[in-house]
Amino acid sequence: MEEIKIFAPATVANLSCGFDVLGCCLDTIGDQMILRKNNLNKLRILRITGQDLPLESENNVATVAIDAMLKTLGSTQGFDIEIDKNIKAGSGIGSSAASSAGAVFAANMLLGEPFNSKELIVFAMEGERLASGNAHADNVAPALMGGFSLVKSYHPLEVLSLPSPPEIRFVILHPLIELKTKDSRAVIKQQVQLKDAIGQWGNLAAFVSGLYTEDYELIGRSLEDKIIEPMRSVLIPYFEELKNIALENGALGFGISGSGPSVFAMCKGDTATANVKKAMQLFYQDKGIEFDLHHSAINRTGIRILE
Amino acid sequence: MEEIKIFAPATVANLSCGFDVLGCCLDTIGDQMILRKNNLNKLRILRITGQDLPLESENNVATVAIDAMLKTLGSTQGFDIEIDKNIKAGSGIGSSAASSAGAVFAANMLLGEPFNSKELIVFAMEGERLASGNAHADNVAPALMGGFSLVKSYHPLEVLSLPSPPEIRFVILHPLIELKTKDSRAVIKQQVQLKDAIGQWGNLAAFVSGLYTEDYELIGRSLEDKIIEPMRSVLIPYFEELKNIALENGALGFGISGSGPSVFAMCKGDTATANVKKAMQLFYQDKGIEFDLHHSAINRTGIRILE
Repeated sequence: MEEIKIFAPATVANLSCGFDVLGCCLDTIGDQMILRKNNLNKLRILRITGQDLPLESENNVATVAIDAMLKTLGSTQGFDIEIDKNIKAGSGIGSSAASSAGAVFAANMLLGEPFNSKELIVFAMEGERLASGNAHADNVAPALMGGFSLVKSYHPLEVLSLPSPPEIRFVILHPLIELKTKDSRAVIKQQVQLKDAIGQWGNLAAFVSGLYTEDYELIGRSLEDKIIEPMRSVLIPYFEELKNIALENGALGFGISGSGPSVFAMCKGDTATANVKKAMQLFYQDKGIEFDLHHSAINRTGIRILE
Repeated sequence: MEEIKIFAPATVANLSCGFDVLGCCLDTIGDQMILRKNNLNKLRILRITGQDLPLESENNVATVAIDAMLKTLGSTQGFDIEIDKNIKAGSGIGSSAASSAGAVFAANMLLGEPFNSKELIVFAMEGERLASGNAHADNVAPALMGGFSLVKSYHPLEVLSLPSPPEIRFVILHPLIELKTKDSRAVIKQQVQLKDAIGQWGNLAAFVSGLYTEDYELIGRSLEDKIIEPMRSVLIPYFEELKNIALENGALGFGISGSGPSVFAMCKGDTATANVKKAMQLFYQDKGIEFDLHHSAINRTGIRILE
């Protein structure tokens, strides 16, 4: 195979109770990428549409991630890359992760699959390191593996796949304000109250139980975050109002997607999803802030080949 | 029914990654209690064997727990209580919880079961409040419900039952030193590093996943505690050496039971359990500290009626 075209999905990380360890793959939002082998021993970004992102291979997350993979393989294979970005950079739904994970997925396919999806995570994380200064896995892991991913630990890296209850849907609202992951991390205090941490791990443990038992109400009750959300939500216009509106209209839970500014409402089934989406839209339209609004089921397989 | 005799089991709380939220019920270690209705509108402890504990109803965890239940019922029913304690007070395997949970379980039976097991937790917690100053549920919940219990939250109180993989065994070593729950709580700092908290909730989430998938190795790898264990283990003689010996001899994991001084080794199957128990015994015999040593499967049903 000389060329491959893929869909690289958006992802929702943190999910309230799972800061830095939990992520979920979305189905309807994502980029398209074309990778083609070249004989130049070089990684080249030929074009990027939809977003203004660096084309130089040392500054683009896609090429940096592929480079990490090639170094491990001892390969000097070159690739030409074309990216159609639909996920806005800095939106909080894994824009850099889609490019990083998509790039290593596609390159791995063209090289005859020397790695499985899980093994690609560590290379895609190098793209995240470039994007945010932090080689986190909670977006690239679900992008590569699909469904819910749990990053159990970083040293050593251990990522688990968790079940995806079939009726879970996400509504994603992206207020079009600028909020860099770096800045969004800066507001976070490095010390937390033990009692808050206990509450958080009680909720995350209950959330995982809810995924296994398909207990949607329990999943909803577990989407609580007394640690990060109070610090970050002040950066997102009308966060509390939106949250109340989503919950009043039937959302299971509501929180910040990744490091924001996107927010997510988790819903059960299509009817609740449509209601919540409509209510969030009507509320935000009044506020004079531009926004994107999406809804999506869970993508259970992650990145997929288009042709 | 005028009289009931029950077995009130020991429990292991915290389990390394689940501080204050996780507990498990043991099968072979426990107290016996007899409750009998009286017509005096009084709660009386007639005798306690095995341990030197208060007989006055306002100072004993069993009567305090029953009193909380009777107040909710608006009942003035009296009970006479006899307790044969096999679980040493202050051992860290839920001695006060066995008495509190056993008492409300037995009284509830004699009253025609106005409450289910889960509803009894809140009354048994009043016994814990008396014993340690903290109305925690991570021992009384598994004592009442059996298996693994997760305390998702205290406000409101929500307790979940988690699966019990069939081959899990515990080895419990109780060094006969005095360590009060109050003192053991005093060494704990109320602020923790966010990065340590993230590690802890990643491990607890993975532990819960391991219970559902019966992945014993994952369960073992998740039994890690970078927050509480470093503070408390210094109070337990030869903790690190015991831990290494247990792990070298095939334990899945090792940690402090409750607030100590008992320690637990979690093992898979009877052979590993026997090996780990023998190795821990041989090591501790040399040290000149008296100790009790038990092993047990998981008790899946909790408190049981003896006759």
